[in-house]
Amino acid sequence: MKPRSRNAPAAKRPTGESIDSAKPALAPNLIRARFTARRLPEIEAFTASLTFDRRLYRHDIMGSIAHARMLAHARLISRAEAAKIVAGLKDIEREISEGRFDFDLADEDIHLAIERRLTDKIGEPARKLHTARSRNDQVALDLRLYMRDEIAKVIELIDALRKTLAHLARDHVETVMPGYTHLQRAQPVSLAHHLAAYLEMLGRDRERFSQAADRTAVMPLGAGALAGTTLPIDRAMVARELGFARIAENSLDAVADRDFVVDFLSAAALAAVHLSRMSEEIILWSTAEFGFVTLPDECSTGSSMMPQKKNPDLLELVRGKTGRVIGDLMAMLTTLKGLPLAYNSDLQEDKERVFDALDTLMPSLRAMTLLWPRLVFDRETMRAAAGGFALATDLAEYLVLRGLPFRQAHEAAGSLVRETIGARRALADLTLEDLRRHSPLFDPDVLASLSAEASIARRSLRGGPAPATMRRYLTRLGSK
Amino acid sequence: MKPRSRNAPAAKRPTGESIDSAKPALAPNLIRARFTARRLPEIEAFTASLTFDRRLYRHDIMGSIAHARMLAHARLISRAEAAKIVAGLKDIEREISEGRFDFDLADEDIHLAIERRLTDKIGEPARKLHTARSRNDQVALDLRLYMRDEIAKVIELIDALRKTLAHLARDHVETVMPGYTHLQRAQPVSLAHHLAAYLEMLGRDRERFSQAADRTAVMPLGAGALAGTTLPIDRAMVARELGFARIAENSLDAVADRDFVVDFLSAAALAAVHLSRMSEEIILWSTAEFGFVTLPDECSTGSSMMPQKKNPDLLELVRGKTGRVIGDLMAMLTTLKGLPLAYNSDLQEDKERVFDALDTLMPSLRAMTLLWPRLVFDRETMRAAAGGFALATDLAEYLVLRGLPFRQAHEAAGSLVRETIGARRALADLTLEDLRRHSPLFDPDVLASLSAEASIARRSLRGGPAPATMRRYLTRLGSK
Amino acid sequence: MKPRSRNAPAAKRPTGESIDSAKPALAPNLIRARFTARRLPEIEAFTASLTFDRRLYRHDIMGSIAHARMLAHARLISRAEAAKIVAGLKDIEREISEGRFDFDLADEDIHLAIERRLTDKIGEPARKLHTARSRNDQVALDLRLYMRDEIAKVIELIDALRKTLAHLARDHVETVMPGYTHLQRAQPVSLAHHLAAYLEMLGRDRERFSQAADRTAVMPLGAGALAGTTLPIDRAMVARELGFARIAENSLDAVADRDFVVDFLSAAALAAVHLSRMSEEIILWSTAEFGFVTLPDECSTGSSMMPQKKNPDLLELVRGKTGRVIGDLMAMLTTLKGLPLAYNSDLQEDKERVFDALDTLMPSLRAMTLLWPRLVFDRETMRAAAGGFALATDLAEYLVLRGLPFRQAHEAAGSLVRETIGARRALADLTLEDLRRHSPLFDPDVLASLSAEASIARRSLRGGPAPATMRRYLTRLGSK
Amino acid sequence: MKPRSRNAPAAKRPTGESIDSAKPALAPNLIRARFTARRLPEIEAFTASLTFDRRLYRHDIMGSIAHARMLAHARLISRAEAAKIVAGLKDIEREISEGRFDFDLADEDIHLAIERRLTDKIGEPARKLHTARSRNDQVALDLRLYMRDEIAKVIELIDALRKTLAHLARDHVETVMPGYTHLQRAQPVSLAHHLAAYLEMLGRDRERFSQAADRTAVMPLGAGALAGTTLPIDRAMVARELGFARIAENSLDAVADRDFVVDFLSAAALAAVHLSRMSEEIILWSTAEFGFVTLPDECSTGSSMMPQKKNPDLLELVRGKTGRVIGDLMAMLTTLKGLPLAYNSDLQEDKERVFDALDTLMPSLRAMTLLWPRLVFDRETMRAAAGGFALATDLAEYLVLRGLPFRQAHEAAGSLVRETIGARRALADLTLEDLRRHSPLFDPDVLASLSAEASIARRSLRGGPAPATMRRYLTRLGSK
Repeated sequence: MKPRSRNAPAAKRPTGESIDSAKPALAPNLIRARFTARRLPEIEAFTASLTFDRRLYRHDIMGSIAHARMLAHARLISRAEAAKIVAGLKDIEREISEGRFDFDLADEDIHLAIERRLTDKIGEPARKLHTARSRNDQVALDLRLYMRDEIAKVIELIDALRKTLAHLARDHVETVMPGYTHLQRAQPVSLAHHLAAYLEMLGRDRERFSQAADRTAVMPLGAGALAGTTLPIDRAMVARELGFARIAENSLDAVADRDFVVDFLSAAALAAVHLSRMSEEIILWSTAEFGFVTLPDECSTGSSMMPQKKNPDLLELVRGKTGRVIGDLMAMLTTLKGLPLAYNSDLQEDKERVFDALDTLMPSLRAMTLLWPRLVFDRETMRAAAGGFALATDLAEYLVLRGLPFRQAHEAAGSLVRETIGARRALADLTLEDLRRHSPLFDPDVLASLSAEASIARRSLRGGPAPATMRRYLTRLGSK
Repeated sequence: MKPRSRNAPAAKRPTGESIDSAKPALAPNLIRARFTARRLPEIEAFTASLTFDRRLYRHDIMGSIAHARMLAHARLISRAEAAKIVAGLKDIEREISEGRFDFDLADEDIHLAIERRLTDKIGEPARKLHTARSRNDQVALDLRLYMRDEIAKVIELIDALRKTLAHLARDHVETVMPGYTHLQRAQPVSLAHHLAAYLEMLGRDRERFSQAADRTAVMPLGAGALAGTTLPIDRAMVARELGFARIAENSLDAVADRDFVVDFLSAAALAAVHLSRMSEEIILWSTAEFGFVTLPDECSTGSSMMPQKKNPDLLELVRGKTGRVIGDLMAMLTTLKGLPLAYNSDLQEDKERVFDALDTLMPSLRAMTLLWPRLVFDRETMRAAAGGFALATDLAEYLVLRGLPFRQAHEAAGSLVRETIGARRALADLTLEDLRRHSPLFDPDVLASLSAEASIARRSLRGGPAPATMRRYLTRLGSK
Repeated sequence: MKPRSRNAPAAKRPTGESIDSAKPALAPNLIRARFTARRLPEIEAFTASLTFDRRLYRHDIMGSIAHARMLAHARLISRAEAAKIVAGLKDIEREISEGRFDFDLADEDIHLAIERRLTDKIGEPARKLHTARSRNDQVALDLRLYMRDEIAKVIELIDALRKTLAHLARDHVETVMPGYTHLQRAQPVSLAHHLAAYLEMLGRDRERFSQAADRTAVMPLGAGALAGTTLPIDRAMVARELGFARIAENSLDAVADRDFVVDFLSAAALAAVHLSRMSEEIILWSTAEFGFVTLPDECSTGSSMMPQKKNPDLLELVRGKTGRVIGDLMAMLTTLKGLPLAYNSDLQEDKERVFDALDTLMPSLRAMTLLWPRLVFDRETMRAAAGGFALATDLAEYLVLRGLPFRQAHEAAGSLVRETIGARRALADLTLEDLRRHSPLFDPDVLASLSAEASIARRSLRGGPAPATMRRYLTRLGSK
Repeated sequence: MKPRSRNAPAAKRPTGESIDSAKPALAPNLIRARFTARRLPEIEAFTASLTFDRRLYRHDIMGSIAHARMLAHARLISRAEAAKIVAGLKDIEREISEGRFDFDLADEDIHLAIERRLTDKIGEPARKLHTARSRNDQVALDLRLYMRDEIAKVIELIDALRKTLAHLARDHVETVMPGYTHLQRAQPVSLAHHLAAYLEMLGRDRERFSQAADRTAVMPLGAGALAGTTLPIDRAMVARELGFARIAENSLDAVADRDFVVDFLSAAALAAVHLSRMSEEIILWSTAEFGFVTLPDECSTGSSMMPQKKNPDLLELVRGKTGRVIGDLMAMLTTLKGLPLAYNSDLQEDKERVFDALDTLMPSLRAMTLLWPRLVFDRETMRAAAGGFALATDLAEYLVLRGLPFRQAHEAAGSLVRETIGARRALADLTLEDLRRHSPLFDPDVLASLSAEASIARRSLRGGPAPATMRRYLTRLGSK
């Protein structure tokens, strides 16, 4: 029985000190029949993907089981052989999940590691499993299966965050706050309205991941090394077994294609950008200067030197990690650039980019979902910030409704603002007379309309912040 | 009338020497009512987008016409005013397209430039056009309209390239060539089969651009600066007028969102990567060493020093430009990172990235479409390269069909290869006896099967290179 | 005489509408002796670099003059021929700078355009100019000469901004403001101290550009197409003529190397990141919430819809353009990846990345240099924000000086903060008794020390904010 | 005693399954005095850097020892206390290096983990270690110390590769091969000359890393959290102890600056690009088509399906990993964009980018150093490829030396090539008469000069391939 650390999923790549890589490989692996010399241990360690691709073990076994059943169906192996293979693979899955599997870098990758172990366990039938298959189509299948499952989890996390935000929005349909452009106070909105902007972004993320998942769910097996096989296999059956709707239509493309990885990384990079925008805003809101929100102690850290500090480092990390996911996308695109067909080992770099993006995005989504409902909003401060000159646009639109062309109305309101600032006064303090000096069209009703609440209520068009509009929006969203 | 150069679309950004930027702005622009000082000319030149956003003029006018009609419908302006606005805008469109429009950097951007000119032309009604609208939702609309049209053109170019490749593939269903993995000869395929891999890639590109176009076709107008408007407008009518299926559901998001730009750039970056792979291959094929293809003189350049050279610089440029499109995507993602809601001027950087990606990808697609049918393939050389050890897999599969487990069959074929290389012989020269020394299962029929053509014909499974399979594939493709 | 637009430096690349590219090329260019067919016009337009590389014309001519003089010195041409070449080239330089030069895309690039014109002007001697030279080493030289001069300008702009910041810092050695970590108020600093952080960043930028310039100033001529020349040229003389300290030591590398472009773009990307950090801060400081600074009208823009708005769009653009420069760097690195030796046309993509980075970074530096001295700081508001809990660290250090281990001091100050916040009180309101409840080590002198000014003055170590320290720092800086 | 896996350096980041993160933190950490609630375990796991920053443990301890000695020197602690601290820290270093240290995520990072353990071991004095220090300056110091050492190792690896290449070049000064431009055979060079191009690239890499190391070796301690300290410390002494030549001149910058990380990543990205170019070439040379080189079995892998394959996957991996290092650079630049001063937790992302780039670049350099001397070059094939039309430039230069202007000489050689290709003949087969049909200047001596060796020997100018030139170059290189 092996020590637990041998298959720890966190042990992602070989380092100088790694036990695995230092260990002399005692036996040649399965596929070096034409070679006369062993690989140098350093080269073996450098080229092996086993340190990270073992994360695919469940999906490798899932794919091999489907393949074995098909081989039996196609009479390339017997039913009894298939049964032994399936049973052996299920045993191996347990061995790995329980940390009892002995990984050896000489096996190069998870595919050969499992096949070698299967051969140890069941002998002859194991030597038939790789019939009509190459590692090139096998690894494409494994990664597609893995990513199909992981993207589904990402979508679940997005849905959880959306649900959290929608719930919070329902509570804050009447919480007034300033809307900003250029980080300058622009017009009053509600917190619900603001949160709904994120609901829209996350909705697009969901769609994007879902389309990426569709392009991932294409069955490559049967492509062989690059050119198919002369053996009478049944590709459609394998696709059915594995729940794939489509099969790859060209064997060269099937092994050379990593578009689905780029699709996923593009969606992940943009989702990370969305989280960075969200984080930036909560960081701003939690400053002493904005004072809109208090971070919960259970999501903050202190300073090792300054006793008073409570830092939004969770949010800074989410923001900072955006670079990481964008970097993963950049890496993959650069790796693919200029590669001739079909399979090249450059593609081996795909998996760690996917793992890194998943390991970055998924905890970020979880952290935001935990954080939002724990934020304490200071409604007073938010409301106070939403008044003042943020109502100037309302004055201009007031004049438009009384027949003034918008450009003159904009000018009148602008000169009013200039004068009021010059006099160090506030809009709310102006009298009807003050207003009328800028336009005779102002009537007494204008004064009553100069509140953030009234301004919000008036903007009831679709997409606007009026409470009734927001409630309809949230109801529509909930019923989806 | 202005010199033609004033609106040359190629003049993309201000430079130190630019005439436009040096010109003192004689009059304040339309929107500086609250300001007491003019902007510095250098700052004006730095912040103005007019040097590049005038490329959007048609779509700006298209959007303004729809907006004016809606304003009349909503009785915010009169029908007569709307008619004057529409006529004036159509005049301006002609002025610009004919190079008679006087651009002035003091106008900041194409929106104010057109509005100022409209005011010059028709007076008062022009001052009402911006009613219930902000440049924030206006520029979002313009860019979406522009990109919807341009993405449609990109899809047409992809279709043209696909048609060209499909046509070529039909001619080369029986043209034998080596398939490569790791750039080592692997197994024989046909040129048609190889081209089909690119047909698959381009098919995914098409789908990706189409989904990007869907997310682009969302109508933002009515979002105002960020928070909607108090005026009784009809957003659905504008969407109908402009042929958009959806309207933006949140006004903050409507002005802050540039996801559709990232969607497009992601699709463009991956399409460029595909073209880089294609280019790399033709470059390889056209080397003296491969000798598979001769480049046409009409698509090649010479050397200023070496008289004998004929260089594939078209293909090198297509390959090299991949970096550029990836750079555009990286630029946009970085720009969006950490931006608070709603509109920020950082977003002004979106347009040049889109223009650059379009100006790079579209001519690349056109160039490849011109090149492919002009390539002259050397079938002899290709066929010769496809024989030899590339048939070793067939030997292994031959043994499998005679009952040998695949691993042993792989080993037998491997030792056969090792020995044959050691003896400096070729597979084709082996006798049945030679083969039988590695496995008694070899029968006389094996010798006949050891040709590239026979090998290809045997790989008739879906996705494989067999002529009949390829013909079915191309027929399916044609009927789509 | 040609219309001015033909050589407008802003017309950077071919577009569908471009006049240049549509014009049929009437005559074959200089280097197609081995070809039997003309290039397709679309391919000619696609591959030509003339639309953008004409920006190098001065440096191309400068290099050719040095080359011609060397050819005469080496007796490969006569002195009279060299004189005619030099005179002709100087004429052409004037023609181009005065807009009288007729550019024709059939010339492919600025090198052939100038050589063709020279041939038109002076006949036979012109045909000898390209002796012992290839466009491959010529374009490397041109770009190096151009970049050497442009990097020098960038360094001047950095120095101008540093001077501006240093000047401002001298005025604000006693202007108190909060220092932030995690955007939470941390400890009081001075504005001078804060500005000095940017002086340090810009100092590193300067060093980085200077090292990039050193690696740029290497003379490639003599490398020929890739392999040198059999003719007896004098490379050292050309280097001396052009002011280069070193000559390229390997001819393959000389034409394949674009490291100096990456060096420049790396320096530019990091400088842009610095400007983005600076911009972010001024944007924050100019919010209503921070209120530290008022933007000058002459550097701000208004809103087309909201009359009250004054937007820091200059700063947002500087911040947003960071993505662009990073994108340029990514583009170049991706383009270089995997290129075999020696010259490949992929390298033609280098120039536009350099131009774009220069055109982005240089105006950004100028804009920041204009802006800083025009900012109006609100010292009252800044000082008020610097007090309060930002002094908690001083309390801890007070206790340390009285012998308490730092961890206990930190804890005592922390519990004091917790209690004071809980009681909704401020540090400044605490009595000695309040303090002593947390540690008996507090003495009456602690109360006097609890001001931002006192706190700053105490932090007089090198690198700290104390006025005397800052003055010494600024003096050291000035004397450099 | 803890199981070895707890501090395995390969376990780089928390995953869902990680033992560490699941473990409930039993005790509050050292710095949460002001907090009333524990952090959520998920948040703790998300924000902790301990999973990866423990890789800095040696340098953290090295820095703390220097700090403790300085505190004693400054009489902030006693000599006895310092001695206990130093001894305790050395013990801890051993515990960690021997796998006996119990890491607990509640400690957040390596700094607090070590401080907590020190407190457990030596009590009171440990509570004084953090005097006049913050984690902000501490982590900056640790990373700088670590990177200084690692960059030195990278430079050693570069030197080893250069030495290998120089040695190989010495053996191949007379090995003839074609030089390529546009991947078309251009002119004959020698393998030594080709290798020297890489020597030049690696020489620049060395310089770049060395300059990055210089900017890394700046001592930040004393900056405290951001604003220095009121305690009378001696920064210069710490710098001396640690071997740093400079100290950070501004405390805000000292904690906010990660330029040195970008410097390193920029150098690493370009070095990786160089390795990708090298890899691409050997991949090409090892194809059946080029046939210049045979890969050693001990550096190659086989195919799981195709028995004959020997794949250059080592080289493909090196090429593919270039994307990864470029991605690391992209990530860091994006993370830094728009960050306000001073420290923000976004910076915590720096370390994993550095580790990843080191773990990618260093084994790549090692692998290339192992590979080059094991390559078997096929001199016959290389020489054969270097003849033919690659000598056309020599013909043109021959005519120039006989007085023909270069353009006419180029034309004459070009027409000669055109005719010879048309007649399906080779240059070597031409008679003097054939040549004279294109120029009467050809004399009988031209025929003898038409060999690759003669051509190379004639190109003896500095930077050229002539054997004597190359030997001088290699001698100069060796004496550096």
